Amino acid sequence: MNPGDLDRTDPAGAVAAAAKRVSNWGRWGADDVRGTMNFLDADRRRAAAALVRTGESYSLAQRFDMDGPQKGWRRRTNPVHTMLDTGVDAVHGDQGFPHGIGGADDVIAMPLQCSTQWDGLGHIFDHGVAWNGRPADKVVTSLGDLVTGIETVADVIAGRGVLLDVGRAIGTDGELPDGFAITTEHLARTIERQGASAAVGRGDLLLVRTGQLTRARRDGWGDYAGGPAPGLSFTTADWLHGTEIAAIATDTWGFEVRPNEFDHAFQPLHQVAIPHIGLFLGEMWDLDALATACAADGVYEFFLTAGPLPVTGAVGAPVNPIAVR
Amino acid sequence: MNPGDLDRTDPAGAVAAAAKRVSNWGRWGADDVRGTMNFLDADRRRAAAALVRTGESYSLAQRFDMDGPQKGWRRRTNPVHTMLDTGVDAVHGDQGFPHGIGGADDVIAMPLQCSTQWDGLGHIFDHGVAWNGRPADKVVTSLGDLVTGIETVADVIAGRGVLLDVGRAIGTDGELPDGFAITTEHLARTIERQGASAAVGRGDLLLVRTGQLTRARRDGWGDYAGGPAPGLSFTTADWLHGTEIAAIATDTWGFEVRPNEFDHAFQPLHQVAIPHIGLFLGEMWDLDALATACAADGVYEFFLTAGPLPVTGAVGAPVNPIAVR
Amino acid sequence: MNPGDLDRTDPAGAVAAAAKRVSNWGRWGADDVRGTMNFLDADRRRAAAALVRTGESYSLAQRFDMDGPQKGWRRRTNPVHTMLDTGVDAVHGDQGFPHGIGGADDVIAMPLQCSTQWDGLGHIFDHGVAWNGRPADKVVTSLGDLVTGIETVADVIAGRGVLLDVGRAIGTDGELPDGFAITTEHLARTIERQGASAAVGRGDLLLVRTGQLTRARRDGWGDYAGGPAPGLSFTTADWLHGTEIAAIATDTWGFEVRPNEFDHAFQPLHQVAIPHIGLFLGEMWDLDALATACAADGVYEFFLTAGPLPVTGAVGAPVNPIAVR
Amino acid sequence: MNPGDLDRTDPAGAVAAAAKRVSNWGRWGADDVRGTMNFLDADRRRAAAALVRTGESYSLAQRFDMDGPQKGWRRRTNPVHTMLDTGVDAVHGDQGFPHGIGGADDVIAMPLQCSTQWDGLGHIFDHGVAWNGRPADKVVTSLGDLVTGIETVADVIAGRGVLLDVGRAIGTDGELPDGFAITTEHLARTIERQGASAAVGRGDLLLVRTGQLTRARRDGWGDYAGGPAPGLSFTTADWLHGTEIAAIATDTWGFEVRPNEFDHAFQPLHQVAIPHIGLFLGEMWDLDALATACAADGVYEFFLTAGPLPVTGAVGAPVNPIAVR
Repeated sequence: MNPGDLDRTDPAGAVAAAAKRVSNWGRWGADDVRGTMNFLDADRRRAAAALVRTGESYSLAQRFDMDGPQKGWRRRTNPVHTMLDTGVDAVHGDQGFPHGIGGADDVIAMPLQCSTQWDGLGHIFDHGVAWNGRPADKVVTSLGDLVTGIETVADVIAGRGVLLDVGRAIGTDGELPDGFAITTEHLARTIERQGASAAVGRGDLLLVRTGQLTRARRDGWGDYAGGPAPGLSFTTADWLHGTEIAAIATDTWGFEVRPNEFDHAFQPLHQVAIPHIGLFLGEMWDLDALATACAADGVYEFFLTAGPLPVTGAVGAPVNPIAVR
Repeated sequence: MNPGDLDRTDPAGAVAAAAKRVSNWGRWGADDVRGTMNFLDADRRRAAAALVRTGESYSLAQRFDMDGPQKGWRRRTNPVHTMLDTGVDAVHGDQGFPHGIGGADDVIAMPLQCSTQWDGLGHIFDHGVAWNGRPADKVVTSLGDLVTGIETVADVIAGRGVLLDVGRAIGTDGELPDGFAITTEHLARTIERQGASAAVGRGDLLLVRTGQLTRARRDGWGDYAGGPAPGLSFTTADWLHGTEIAAIATDTWGFEVRPNEFDHAFQPLHQVAIPHIGLFLGEMWDLDALATACAADGVYEFFLTAGPLPVTGAVGAPVNPIAVR
Repeated sequence: MNPGDLDRTDPAGAVAAAAKRVSNWGRWGADDVRGTMNFLDADRRRAAAALVRTGESYSLAQRFDMDGPQKGWRRRTNPVHTMLDTGVDAVHGDQGFPHGIGGADDVIAMPLQCSTQWDGLGHIFDHGVAWNGRPADKVVTSLGDLVTGIETVADVIAGRGVLLDVGRAIGTDGELPDGFAITTEHLARTIERQGASAAVGRGDLLLVRTGQLTRARRDGWGDYAGGPAPGLSFTTADWLHGTEIAAIATDTWGFEVRPNEFDHAFQPLHQVAIPHIGLFLGEMWDLDALATACAADGVYEFFLTAGPLPVTGAVGAPVNPIAVR
Repeated sequence: MNPGDLDRTDPAGAVAAAAKRVSNWGRWGADDVRGTMNFLDADRRRAAAALVRTGESYSLAQRFDMDGPQKGWRRRTNPVHTMLDTGVDAVHGDQGFPHGIGGADDVIAMPLQCSTQWDGLGHIFDHGVAWNGRPADKVVTSLGDLVTGIETVADVIAGRGVLLDVGRAIGTDGELPDGFAITTEHLARTIERQGASAAVGRGDLLLVRTGQLTRARRDGWGDYAGGPAPGLSFTTADWLHGTEIAAIATDTWGFEVRPNEFDHAFQPLHQVAIPHIGLFLGEMWDLDALATACAADGVYEFFLTAGPLPVTGAVGAPVNPIAVR
């Protein structure tokens, strides 16, 4: 399917049709809470570790601080980090500890989706239904996600990472423009240009670089959080399903192209990917340093560890993903 | 040095003497901000990746929630996780989104040292002096750690992990009693019992299991946060320095034995390890599942990735460490 | 009705029967959001101002800090207050402001019901129904109380305060024991002993002192938050309704006696008072200094201003009540 | 002194000279922590209560929510209010309480200076010196304001309020333009126009309306938080001192005119008013409804109660001021 084939007036119909085609409900049993993470097993993880060639490591996390992109929409602020004790106090002699020891301590308040993160399976619902066909109101209450909380995948997300640098392959000066819908064809072309190490398959942790973060870093955040952005086309739903990847992450706020490809819509690909495919989505990842390294030697696969902070019942969680090449 | 040789009335003297012996100040230049993480280079990381044999992965993080050990001392609470939107609201039709999409979002407020964490180099000072000889008041102000913030090691902490299960090797039923001081001799004996895979050396991420968390899990938290605990003896300072490990983590609140080995003291080994050795300390790690696996096949080394959440200027940070065997 | 007449095995029945007798639903129209605050009009407020005789003022708020009674139950912590900037930083010269100005700023994270507070009308429901017969799920969603948020009474709570010091009138050494159920008869006896200034009527802001806070201050918090306590008997529901008071506040965590007067129950008087009477409940007020002054001159009425912090959509709110005698 | 007499290049000199003229250091003893609140005694409070004529009450607080003016500068966000439990959950049957009771609870995280507030005496320093000549680093550490925390005036702020509606008296359509410096002459002219009830004197709680909040409410926040604004001229320092008012509050973010009246400056009048006069400043108060009522009947005095939320050690605090006419 191509973007041109979408009926722009009927996102609900498109979601329903796609959901029907790509549903993984029941694939791993009625009790499953890990969705596509089931594709990432010990064998694949062992094979992925063998991809380490130089031992160079890359953090794919943005910094967590008030300089982030959030503007308060839906009460999403940037992280507020404050000190309980400081070195200034210690030098000043205020701390009351013995034998000259001094210390500093700190506190944070933040939305779990404020910066580099995973969307958990409880983050998005389709008509009140969550992953694996569960009623959303039985899954996520005011107490949090009682079933598919992010802690359920605390130990699994380490495996083969593969970078598709669509910005470099298809864009201009390494960047796709805002509103650019990445199609299956673009993905295929990127894989082709990048070569054999860029093949995408079962259990992979797929990283898609658009270059938007590079642009935001250069030009200022602007509407990075929620505004126009390059991203995956709604039409990639079948490819996301068919490749049997374990997860996908991008360098944008919202993974899919914005404005969305319907006249009145809000993140329709999420509505298919999370509750129906059971796919984990990473957002606001910083792929630039890794992408530079991959471009330099032409190797686009690596060992990636990205265990979310296991906040019990969280529907998403901050993460410091580490790629080792 | 043995614990019996310590002058219990003079922690300041003991700290000063040890600091003199083990100081790494200047070792990596005047501008260094990574301390012992300098030992963990790409070569060692590459070699560590080769330790992966089965691909089984273990999260060494406790869950982050209100059921944690904190009691409010020094304003350290357990994490408060609240929902901005829920599945109940989505089912109820409150969210105002189009085409049947619904969502859940969440927020957290927590001390950065509330649960499984890294102490950064700005966490502890000796007489107002921080790592590498910097005045603490030039390092950590109300704005955070301006020099050695945890983000400076966001990308480095992936390498060879080695577990010393002192609880199993020396303790009873896998647990050391509270107040048990782990000496260099105990460490050596544990290494000997565990065999060749337990050798400890340059650049390693050393995990020491005492069994106290096992006990707390069984009997309740009690005074786990700050109370009596097994832990490293002050006398291990030279060993911690001499092994050239990159970091050490334990399953206890405070890494070193408590009560401390002086009449009136507070965490004297921290005062040597962090500002003088430049050593990273991990606390409240959950080593139990990993320890069981190691005991089963007798292999105590693995690939460990433990990148801290890169909160800018943090003096410590939560982490979800992932061990792959 | 006396406590002895309650069927301890049937709280649901008792709640239903009381609710039927005391309901104010519709009394102020279908759109009403102020409940019993409707009794407190400008005329009564003007008359109350005339009660000021000396101009002495009393804050009835506890201090908001980590030394409060909360223990984390249902994620209710004590307030965490941290500094964004300090005088130590200012002296140290870190702030970067011109012409010698320095400053300090601070942040707080807290449950709105952590200390001295008002329960708003959205705080408690009876079988899913909120004040004035509204379905609770149409009133309080994850976005807060959309109808009866505490901000709706931001301007109204100033009027005649009257103190019933039941602790002094009925108790021993000014204190009622934990588990003591204050009945209508105890209230009447207290009024009689205190004299004419203690009459209770329409539009009054009634303060009931049990002495439990005095005890907690002396002996430690113990189970002050949620444990056994003196408080209003379930049987006072009709009196609370019939007096046409605007609000009632106590020096205890939960206003009503605990353990509750049924075998298996949780705050049944709340279930009648808030959704059915539309009554505002104040909890954890510090009445001791005021009570001492009232006891000294025998005057138990005063001008009371207790506007809640108007957090939009809050179901309760902290308050610093000020009594002027 | 007129604004034209200020040397725009020398704010430090102007501050020093003004401080010398208006200092109240020692006026109430070396231990004083209440500054100008000492002017507000019981006699004046009693007299103020007699000003109540109709009993109408006005809340002068803005609503506390994410729609406020803050933009994150210096980590000042708008309040983040989240629910621990909701009516939707209660209806849904998730709460596990007996006999049909359901409840809602909530949490807030916010800077104490995010909305309608008092600046405490620990908020601003002059060359590292706080109110009454104390070294700022002995007053406000990471533990908060150890000396003049806002809780020290928890019980005092109730007395005669007087509104100077400079917007209506001097401005156009009730509003002063941004950058308009209100001088002593403007204040005098306003008093003259408003008549006898607008006289300002010892112990008064003075409210100055500029109309900027009216404009922000109409046109959007824009740079209300920290940007250009009408406000008190630096040259009013002597008048603020000489009138012996207890406090002053405005409807603007920062009380004094912005841009400030020097080439390179930041809030120089604060630097005189708080540490030297010991004056309490209220900011972001909503004076519009009260001003309309005052304009209607020509009476500009009333009974004002504005006890800050007594957060221990806070250098400022949110408040819901209640004016009763």
